[in-house]
Order: sequence, then C-alpha cells, then structure tokens
Amino acid sequence: MSEVDCIQSLRDLLGPYALRVEELLDRWVPEPGVPEDLGKAMRYCVLDGGKRLRPALVFMTNEAVGTAGGDEELAERAAAAVELIHCYSLVHDDLPAMDDDDLRRGRPTAHVQFGQAMAILAGDALLTRAFSVLTECLMPKSCKLAFELAVAAGAAGMVAGQAGDMELCEVPKGREGLDFIHLRKTASLIVASVRMGAISANANEKQLRAVSNYGESIGLAFQLVDDLLDVTGKVELLGKTPGKDHASGKQTYVSVLGVDETRSIADTLTHQAMEAIAPLGAAGDKLGRLAKLLSERSH
Amino acid sequence: MSEVDCIQSLRDLLGPYALRVEELLDRWVPEPGVPEDLGKAMRYCVLDGGKRLRPALVFMTNEAVGTAGGDEELAERAAAAVELIHCYSLVHDDLPAMDDDDLRRGRPTAHVQFGQAMAILAGDALLTRAFSVLTECLMPKSCKLAFELAVAAGAAGMVAGQAGDMELCEVPKGREGLDFIHLRKTASLIVASVRMGAISANANEKQLRAVSNYGESIGLAFQLVDDLLDVTGKVELLGKTPGKDHASGKQTYVSVLGVDETRSIADTLTHQAMEAIAPLGAAGDKLGRLAKLLSERSH
Repeated sequence: MSEVDCIQSLRDLLGPYALRVEELLDRWVPEPGVPEDLGKAMRYCVLDGGKRLRPALVFMTNEAVGTAGGDEELAERAAAAVELIHCYSLVHDDLPAMDDDDLRRGRPTAHVQFGQAMAILAGDALLTRAFSVLTECLMPKSCKLAFELAVAAGAAGMVAGQAGDMELCEVPKGREGLDFIHLRKTASLIVASVRMGAISANANEKQLRAVSNYGESIGLAFQLVDDLLDVTGKVELLGKTPGKDHASGKQTYVSVLGVDETRSIADTLTHQAMEAIAPLGAAGDKLGRLAKLLSERSH
Repeated sequence: MSEVDCIQSLRDLLGPYALRVEELLDRWVPEPGVPEDLGKAMRYCVLDGGKRLRPALVFMTNEAVGTAGGDEELAERAAAAVELIHCYSLVHDDLPAMDDDDLRRGRPTAHVQFGQAMAILAGDALLTRAFSVLTECLMPKSCKLAFELAVAAGAAGMVAGQAGDMELCEVPKGREGLDFIHLRKTASLIVASVRMGAISANANEKQLRAVSNYGESIGLAFQLVDDLLDVTGKVELLGKTPGKDHASGKQTYVSVLGVDETRSIADTLTHQAMEAIAPLGAAGDKLGRLAKLLSERSH
C-alpha cells in the first residue's frame, strides 16, 4: 500500500471516532465560567483536526470488549479526557524551554499564537479539564479511570518520558534508552486509552491484559514509524517538518539502529500487537487493522 | 496582638495539620517508578516548609462537620491533593514567562534551581499527581472530591485568576477586577479545601453552604491582608521581598483602595466568615480562630 493510500485508510478507519470526540471536545472545552480569551486559547489547542488516535482507541477497545452493561458515557468521557491530556502535553512540549517548536499540524504553536504565559496556562487548564470531564458524571468507575489516566500521564509515565527525552534524567544508552523514553512518552497514554476503553466496557482480567499488551506494542511501534517517517516522509503528509530530529542530532531509533533494523522492530511489534488481541476474536478485527495501518505508514 | 505573636499563634494552630500533611506528601511524592532527578525536583517543590493552610482547612472542616461515618483517609488524600495543586501553581507562576520570581520561601524558585524545562515538567507532574493521590483509594466519594478540585483549579477557577492577574484576559476595572482575580486565583482553591473536608465528613447541604461561604470570605481576606503586608510587612516574616508588587506598579487592593479601606474590607470579610460558620456551633471554633488570626497578621 502506498503512503498516501495508507493514510487515507487510516483516516477512513479513525474518522467516525474522530468526529465523535470532536463533538465532545467542542461541547466540553472550555467548561462554563471560563474567561473568553483563555477559553479561545484552550479551544485553539484542542480543536485542531488531529487524528484523535487515543480517543479512537478508547472507543475501539470499548466496542471490542463489548460486555453487556458497559457504559458509553464513560467511554466518551475517557476519550475526551485522554485527548485533553495529549493536547496539553503537545502545548507544553512545544514551549521554547522545551522542544521550541513553532509549527504544529501546519499552524503556529500555542506560544507563538498567544505568548508563552497563555500557552503554559492553557496547557495547565487542559490537563485539569481532563479530570473534571472524567469525574463529572460521578460514576463509581470514573474514579478508576481517573486513576489510570493520572498514573499514565504523570511523573512515572508521560512526564518521565519527556524528562528523559529532554535529558533531564538519566536513561540507559542505545535502544534501551529509546525504549525507556518512548514507553513512557508515547506508549503510556496509548495503554491508558485501551485500558480505559476496556474498563468502561467491564473487561475481565484476561481482556484487560490483552489490550494492555496490544497498546504497549502499537505505542512503541508508533514511535519507531514516526522516526522512520522523519527520514523518509513527506512534509505534506507529516504536517510537520521532516528531517528535524535528524538535523538536530537527536537520538532516534533510526539514528541508533538504522532504517532496516528500525523497520524490522516495528514489524515485530505490530505482529506482537496482533497476537496480543487474538483472544478477543473477531471483535478485535478493527484493532488489528489499525495496528497494521499504523505500521504500514512507513512502508 | 503583634505581627510576630500573630504568626506564632497561626503556626501553633496550623502546626499539627502541617506536620500531618508533610508526612503524607513525603510518602506520596513522588509515586513509584519516577526517575530520580524528576522525583527530586517534585519533592523540592513540595517539601518546602510552607504553612499548609489549604490542607489544614481540609482537616479542620472535616473535624468541624464531624458527622459519623466521615472518612479520614479521604480527608488525608484531599489535603495532600490540594497542596499538590497549590505547589504546582506556585512553580508555574514563578516561571520567567509568568511572574518571573527567583525566590520563594527563602529558597531559589524551581526554574532557578533546576532550569525552566524541569520546572514546567515538575509542575505538570505535581498537578497530575494530585489526581492520582485523590483517586487511588477508589472510594465512591473520591470521584466527587476530584471533580470539586478539578473545577476549582481549572480554567474557570485558579487558572482564570492567574490569567486575569497576568492581564491575559479582560477583567473589570478597580475593586471589581481585583475581586474577579482573587476570588479565582486564591479563594477558589480555599473554597475547594473546605468543601472537600466537609464532603469527606458527609456534610449536609446547610453545612456545605456554611463552609463554602466561610472559605470564600477568608480566601478573599487572605489576599487583602497579603497586599497590606506587601506595604507594611517585614521581609523575615514574609519569606519574600516586601514592596515587590508595589514597586512593579501592579494593581493591588492597597494601590486601588488605600491601606485603610483595604484593612476595613478585610475586617468585614473576616466578620462575614465568622458569621458563616455560626451554624456549626462550638465545632467551628477553630475555623473562627483561624479566620481571625489570618486577618490580624496585618494589624
């Protein structure tokens, strides 16, 4: 499949879920009582036409587990919450003191558009909003979901990954170090997405293990493929400048392992993801298709 | 009462609660699995010998309402969580792009000590940790507390206050504008503290209204007194440079209303706080004493 066809198939698969979460975010961001300028900045950071991979994973695992009594409102809240966390992390990661990026999905980054102070505050506001969206319904299970999300997004998860990536804490050398960073920076929130989707559908332990393993594999594969695209990708498909990581001398899977080895590990991880969800049977077909398409972006 | 005596009495009143939350924060920050350097930065930002006013308010309202069946673990988690939110907000507010402060409680601020990137990440980590601390026990009521805290700390609450204070959003002119800012920036989290304490003690509607009104009054009075101390206070009692707000030309209650009017409004608010908790009877005595001591700091 060509890169263009593959991205189109991904859009077709994720599109309906993206639309659904777009509507929820449009309704829930900002919450009532937010000053206009702050609310505008929050919406700018959130309503930006992203792929919405993480919310899609919440919905898809929710459907795949599909136990009777699973709660749809809870899945919707989890989907919006994980995307809010993802969006806040992009806003803060783009700041001059962090990765110093001016462009994100073809638009000026938040601090370029609104100034650094507003970007920091809008990020804080989105991170906090994730937890009010998730807990507002006061369902017993939303407490469990909030805990899953907070642990995955926190200092042992996503924040640790960014700290490692910024060389603010020690990480092992070579591939081990890259795995350390990206298991936290990227995979952690993806695992939280599939777990929240499954928990809100009343998954049993075996199902929860299956989707967790799936999430970890595609989460890591996602980063390997991103590193490949940084070398081989086209700017109009990436929505960001290709070659940037390479040019900055930043360690990537490709710079450490080379193109062929990186692609081979991505393929292995994708295979592991498919095996992990085998116990879900036909209900897991969409998740399998997603894993394949995410990997094929770089083929 | 002299300024020194008053601060000593405040310490005596808050001390036992401060010790208790200090132990909890020492145990809960960082969570397991956090890289060492990130964990160190988080602890630096949290274990700094602050007054712990907000946690004390959680414990004091919890005791004042004191309904049978009130949950102590929940109050402990709420106390730690609100302090984590308070600490994260100080770290981000001190950043160069925000208030650009180098000194906090006599020590270098987080970005001076660890660099801006780490300060941003440590703040994000503490904000997120508040919600994992609060939801970890998976009690039905912790979901309600998490919602209260997220709303108070979010874009309609504390973050809005900081945005207004930074002139990033429109606020009314004069006293109305100062009230707009400080009801959000300071009072909002103080109200959340007393509400969480009361809710974890199974408060009824009347009790909840009483402590909410109390919290709003002392929260606003707190800022008025702070503005007075900025003009009249001594550096060794403040732990920060007095006269800074005045010198920066920032609008304060004192610069808008003058010293006498500011003190008179602070006294009125303190009186309102005492009236608000009258329905709690003798159980509210400590809360009343606290309101008085907070106000007397500037007498």
